[in-house]
Order: sequence, then C-alpha cells, then structure tokens
Amino acid sequence: MDNLVSLAKRRGFIFQGSEIYGGMPGIYDYGHYGTLLKDNIRAAWLKHMIQLRDDVYGLDSAIFMHPTTWVASGHVGNFDDPQIDCRNCKNRMRADHILESFGINADKAPIEVINAELDKLRAAKKLKCTNCGSSDLTPARKFSLMVKSNLGSPTDALTEENVVYLRPETCGGIYLQYKNTLDSLHPHLPFGIAQVGKAFRNEISARQFIFRTREFEQMELQYFLKKEDVEKTYEYWKNTRFEWYVAHGISRESLRFYKHEKLAHYASQAWDIEYNFKSLEGFKEVEGIHARGDWDLSQHSKFSGVDLSYFDEETKQRFIPHIVETSAGLNRLVLMFLDHAYTEDEVNGEKRVFLKLPFALAPVKAAIFPLLKNKPVLVAKAREIYEMLREKFMVEFDDNGNIGKRYRRQDEIGTPYCITVDFDTIEKDAGVTVRNRDTGVQERVKIEELVGRLK
Amino acid sequence: MDNLVSLAKRRGFIFQGSEIYGGMPGIYDYGHYGTLLKDNIRAAWLKHMIQLRDDVYGLDSAIFMHPTTWVASGHVGNFDDPQIDCRNCKNRMRADHILESFGINADKAPIEVINAELDKLRAAKKLKCTNCGSSDLTPARKFSLMVKSNLGSPTDALTEENVVYLRPETCGGIYLQYKNTLDSLHPHLPFGIAQVGKAFRNEISARQFIFRTREFEQMELQYFLKKEDVEKTYEYWKNTRFEWYVAHGISRESLRFYKHEKLAHYASQAWDIEYNFKSLEGFKEVEGIHARGDWDLSQHSKFSGVDLSYFDEETKQRFIPHIVETSAGLNRLVLMFLDHAYTEDEVNGEKRVFLKLPFALAPVKAAIFPLLKNKPVLVAKAREIYEMLREKFMVEFDDNGNIGKRYRRQDEIGTPYCITVDFDTIEKDAGVTVRNRDTGVQERVKIEELVGRLK
Repeated sequence: MDNLVSLAKRRGFIFQGSEIYGGMPGIYDYGHYGTLLKDNIRAAWLKHMIQLRDDVYGLDSAIFMHPTTWVASGHVGNFDDPQIDCRNCKNRMRADHILESFGINADKAPIEVINAELDKLRAAKKLKCTNCGSSDLTPARKFSLMVKSNLGSPTDALTEENVVYLRPETCGGIYLQYKNTLDSLHPHLPFGIAQVGKAFRNEISARQFIFRTREFEQMELQYFLKKEDVEKTYEYWKNTRFEWYVAHGISRESLRFYKHEKLAHYASQAWDIEYNFKSLEGFKEVEGIHARGDWDLSQHSKFSGVDLSYFDEETKQRFIPHIVETSAGLNRLVLMFLDHAYTEDEVNGEKRVFLKLPFALAPVKAAIFPLLKNKPVLVAKAREIYEMLREKFMVEFDDNGNIGKRYRRQDEIGTPYCITVDFDTIEKDAGVTVRNRDTGVQERVKIEELVGRLK
Repeated sequence: MDNLVSLAKRRGFIFQGSEIYGGMPGIYDYGHYGTLLKDNIRAAWLKHMIQLRDDVYGLDSAIFMHPTTWVASGHVGNFDDPQIDCRNCKNRMRADHILESFGINADKAPIEVINAELDKLRAAKKLKCTNCGSSDLTPARKFSLMVKSNLGSPTDALTEENVVYLRPETCGGIYLQYKNTLDSLHPHLPFGIAQVGKAFRNEISARQFIFRTREFEQMELQYFLKKEDVEKTYEYWKNTRFEWYVAHGISRESLRFYKHEKLAHYASQAWDIEYNFKSLEGFKEVEGIHARGDWDLSQHSKFSGVDLSYFDEETKQRFIPHIVETSAGLNRLVLMFLDHAYTEDEVNGEKRVFLKLPFALAPVKAAIFPLLKNKPVLVAKAREIYEMLREKFMVEFDDNGNIGKRYRRQDEIGTPYCITVDFDTIEKDAGVTVRNRDTGVQERVKIEELVGRLK
C-alpha cells in the first residue's frame, strides 16, 4: 500500500483532499493521470452497460432528492454504524470492527448486543483504543451515515427541520425516475437503468486510502424484470459482471464470489465480487449483485402515492417489477486496477516499476519522443506524429531528459507504447521504434501504420 | 421554452428531480438522451482542453474541501444574495431581480442600498409579490448561497461549529491542488488545470429550467502564467472559447461578448460569452473568462501557510503565477445546444420537430431499421449491421411501428442518420438507405462503407 500511495502521489494520480490545509479525512482528489484512469474505467463500464446493449438506458440523477426518498428506502433512522470514541485521544472507532478483531461477528447487530459484547471485553481488560491504547472508551452508540445539508432551506441556518440528505447511494434516483423512463422510452421488461454518480456517507473511520471514503462514486445498474425471471437473470448478471473484470485484465485467480448469508427481508440473493488486493492484504468487495425483490418500487409507490406498476401487454397483467442490482464502487475499482497493475521487475540489472494497465484503461496510450532534444529535425517530426495521434488518442510528447528517464516515467503511469523518432526515421524513411511497456521489446513501425497498430 | 421542456421530458432528456415526491425546486435529473448529450458536451470540452493540447492537465477534485478554503476565497460571509419573502404566499424573491425589473441596477449593492430602493417602490405602491401580487413583503436580507453540511462531523447533529460547505464552484479544488500538480507533473509556465464537476448554490429562486439550478456542473480551466503574459493570453482564451462554440455548431450571430465593468478588486478583465436563447428570449451568459491576477494562489498561500510560488528556472525568479480562468456551466450548455438545435419544419405537408445537433454531440449517431418488422430476413440483417456499428458508435435498433414514426422519434432526439435495410439490401446486395436528419435526403450506401461514412 505504501508503494502504491507514494506512486499515486508522485506521478499525479491521487492526492489527499485539501492537503495544503492539513487534509480532509476520507476525501481524495484525482490528479491528471488519476482523472484519466477513472474516466476510462467509467467509460468502459458505460460502454458495457449501455452502448453494447439495447436493454439498458442511462440516467444521471441529482445528488439531492426529496427527503421522503430516504424514509421510504429505510435509510432514515436505520442507516448507521456503531461508534465508540476514545476519551483520551478523541479517536473514533467502529465498534463492530473492534469486535471483529476479537473474532466476534457483530455485523448489523443491535446496539445493545454490541455493548454487551464490548462490556465483556472491557471486564477482561482487552478493550483498548486502536490509536493510543487507552481503555477509557465510551459505550457504543448509533452514528448515522446519512450526510445532512441545508440545500433549498428557507433559512441559511442549519435546522433539523429543513434537512435534506446527500444521497448515500445512487440507485434511489433510478427508482424515482423509473416511471419517467417508462413513459418516455416505452421499454418492455426486462430492461435496466444504469448510472454513474457521487454518493456520500459519514463513515466513522475512513481509512485504507481510496477504498472507503466519505465522498465516492458508484456505478449502479437496476435491472427490472418479472418475478419468474429473477433466478436465471441473477445468474446471468453475476457471471456477466465477473467476466467484465476478466475482460479488463484482472486475473481470474485474484477474483472470487462471496455469498451473503444474512439478507435483508426483501432480498432473495446477495453475492459480492471480491478482488484480492495486494495493498489491503486480502480479498475485499469491489461489487455487489443483489436480487432486491419488488421492495424498492413498492416502497416508493407507497410513500409517493404514485402507481409504479408495469402493464404487461402480452399477459394483460399489472404488477410491480422485481429488481436485480449490480453495484460497483468506481474509486474502489481505481484502487483495484492500480493494485493489479503495479509491477516491479528488473531491466538490464535495474529495478523498474510499471503499471501493467490494459490499453483501454491506460491514462496515456502512447508517448512520442524525439531521440535527441537538440536536433530540430527529430523534434519537428516527433511533434508531427504527436499531433496526428492526439486527434484519436490521449498521447504525450516528451523531449525531457534522456530516453531511459522518459521510459521510466511512462512505465510508472502505465503507458503501453513509447514511440521514438530517430535519424533512421528521417534519413532512411524507416518508420519509428515502438517499445512495448510490458516486454521492453522494440520494433520498427511505419508511421502510416501507427494509428491502426495502436487501435 | 414550453416546447423545449415538453420535448425534453417526453423524449427522455430531462426530468424534474424527485418528481414522484412532488419535485425538488432547482434540481433536475437527466434521462437516457440527456445523459448522453451532457456526456458528449463534457467529452468535447475535455478533448479540446486536455487531449488536443499539451499545456493543460486534468483534475477531479472532491466536492468537499477544508472549510478554510472558503474563508480564504472570500465566500464565507460574502457570497450571498438579497432575499425578500412574501408574507402572504411564502414566495421567495431576489430583491436585485425585482429592482432590475424597474430598471434599477442593484447588482452586488449593499443590503442598505437595496432596502432604500425597495422602500421607494413600496411608498409608490409599486412593490408586489411576483407570484400572488400581495404588497405584504419582508425587507431584503442577505441569504448565503453556500450550502452547508455535517460531513465528517463528530456528531450526527447539525451544528454550525462543525459545518463543512459543498463547493460553490469547482476552481477552488484547482488552487488547492496546484502545488501537487507542480510537484508531480513538473510543468513550466504557462500551463493550465481543467476540471468538470458539480457545484452547489442555495439559489433563492431557481427558475428558468436547467439555466440556473441549485446543483449544477461546471467546466473550468485555470491557466497559470506570468503577469506580463496576461494581456495577450487573455485575448487568446477569449477567442479560443468563442470559436469552440462555433466549431460545435452554434451560429456566430447567436453569440456575443459582454464586458463586465464592475470588477473584483483583484481582477483586471472579465468578459462573458453570451448566447441568444430562444427559450429565454434573449442573450444570457454561458461562459465567463476572467483575468484573476495572483489573488487566488496568494490567498490560499496566506491562509494555509504553504508556499505556492513558482520558480522560473530561466530568470531565476520566484513569484505567484497569475491566472486566466474560463468557466462554463455544463447544464447551461445542454440548454443552449437543445435551444439552438430545436427546429420545426414541414416535410410532405406535415409539421416536423427535430434537433439539429452536430454529430459529435448527438446522443445517438445512427438508428438502424428493418423496413418491415415481420420479415425475419430484414430484421436479421438490420441487427447484424446494428451490432457491427455499436462497437464504434452509440446507435439504436428500432423495428417498432412504421418507418415514418421511427423517423419522427429519431428526429426528435437529434439522430443524424437513419439506416434502413430493405429487400434490395438482401436480394440485390444494394447496400442500405441512409437518411439525413436535416435534409430528409436518402442515399444508398454500401454496408462496408457505413463506418467510414459515419466517421
């Protein structure tokens, strides 16, 4: 993890939010290469979900929704974590995480149960602050993950009465626009609505770099279908999403499914796709696939008074569709792809770090160099090739330092190809050398073939 | 405007936020085609700013920043609008907008000046609620545009003490990551940092559809340079940004510059690019170009205690760079492109509505139809072409209703080309017909030439 965080900062992928003001815990900013990488992952997901299918529609719903949304969904009053504080150093901890470290599973347990377990540890003098080691800890209490704001409030003071929430997940917006989607696009079941967007949770302790943050991006699909199709369609999406990771370069061995045994009362199945993070030393969730029944649309129909049923013209039946959901964390996927791509090897006896990112996700597809900076004829030709390629690809021109230094920089940002213009390019019309990031192998390629070869 | 709002809803471009719960004022959701259109505008801006240049870097900084950011920038305590309320119908109004309707310019005027002007109108019995006509209005008072939240707060109650703001503009994140950008990418002046992201303002009255909303997206460039280069670079960006609109299909006649006479004390120039909205009946700002001096970096340097100076290796001088900013509203541009594209004409004696969007921005690039739905050979061939094209473009397959109805639907979502497979396609290997959205002209094109022709 230290290597990854250091590379991410040094090469302009990811910075601590508001670093010059001492930072904001759980908030990260994406630098030039991080922005390009994140945008490429987002684009790959959207292409897979929308462009390459004809049964899924896009949506970009707002972060702010009517407060009743979160009453209907059960978030208000229920979406919380058990928090304990250290009276000595003010460290805040998740009580369930502490219990877990003693082998006690307290996931979603009532606060009374958690406090009873904590009391046992306290009596055994085992309960200590994870930061300072003090045993002067508060009892556990519920802490709401819902972030509150005064947007649209008639006064600019903060009052609980006028609170609106920042969405804790993006799928709510899909349920609320399900009817407008039906009425404008007239789809037939089964169909899906997919969106990428920000969500916010007041995590008690936001750690592990960009794995769990207070401001984050989700990529969610809600797939609407008939109840009798849920079982086979659930399997379909479970496998389709797993294969998406493999198709984007993640090795099968570093992925696995995890089946949730404890389910919400309305859910019939819930599996996670887990990736074996080298940086987090183990398998962690990157995506959840959930069979949610007709709970969401039923609840919003009940709380809004708006009929959210679907009329099946074939069977002449009217019913609330069921939902299969796939939900991935975009920032978590950035971490996963960086984690998987991070490679160290040796070239000519020298240690080298490179990011083995697939072409589609790499921030920069190719870098173009003149062999020597001080030969105008080489520089001019390299610029000409660079300007031709940048119409089609994200590419870079670099004439700083020597070739070895330029290679190292491009390796560290994961550029698959480095293209060098040398004297043979000019004098013998012998094309350019194209160096492969992963193998280091160089080959000569004609200039007019470059676009096709990169594609 | 009514036609545009109705088309936007009916065809799945833009919906009122949380509509089933009665709506959220100033909040809009983007449906399938609206999401695609907005994403295409965003991508066109990013390509123009980043991919086609080698002096501008991307950034995606968080919505949440350290609260001191907004003290340094002058937003806390100063970023407000004068609000008056109707005691009869609870309507909230911008006092400066009311004065403006009487020809009185109160832009950024002190609250005492505004109340003095309002009192004159009141005495003349001219001051009335814009909604119900009542003259029982409150005096004007300052209302902060800054949206507050409790993200990261140690308690889940709302207290002013632990307030963090949602950013009211995206550029703050650029200033805060200026140093990390310098340290990781080592650029030389002049260089820029560009980002697209959400911002939030507690607008007193959010009206005019998506023109002014409480949650919105900005596309901002901060271009860092030496003081002596400001004048010529300012002109360069002013013209470059104007020509971007023309290159993306906006007619020159519907664009103009507006020069701000009242400037912030640190600014040397501020011009807007205005577009003549048919839907808003006049020229309105779509982008601002501002010469901001060294104010922003100086303030953040002062408040953070971190040196934000630049060392010029040529002249061996150390100084705080100046900034030229270009700032556009993405949602406003969606409205502009829809407004400009909205066209009514007559085809064969029938009224037709179509969106004359440029190819790069159109949500769907082509629609593929079998001439008849009940001829499997036509359907199969049309699907085959659709599946070939969707690898490269956002395209649609449609076999609903008759061809005329399909054309009307594609016209209304702005699809430039409709491709029809008929019996000649199959029996005579005679290619397909390609219909041009704007002219209605059809021509036969060979299937193997389709990709090239669309490109």
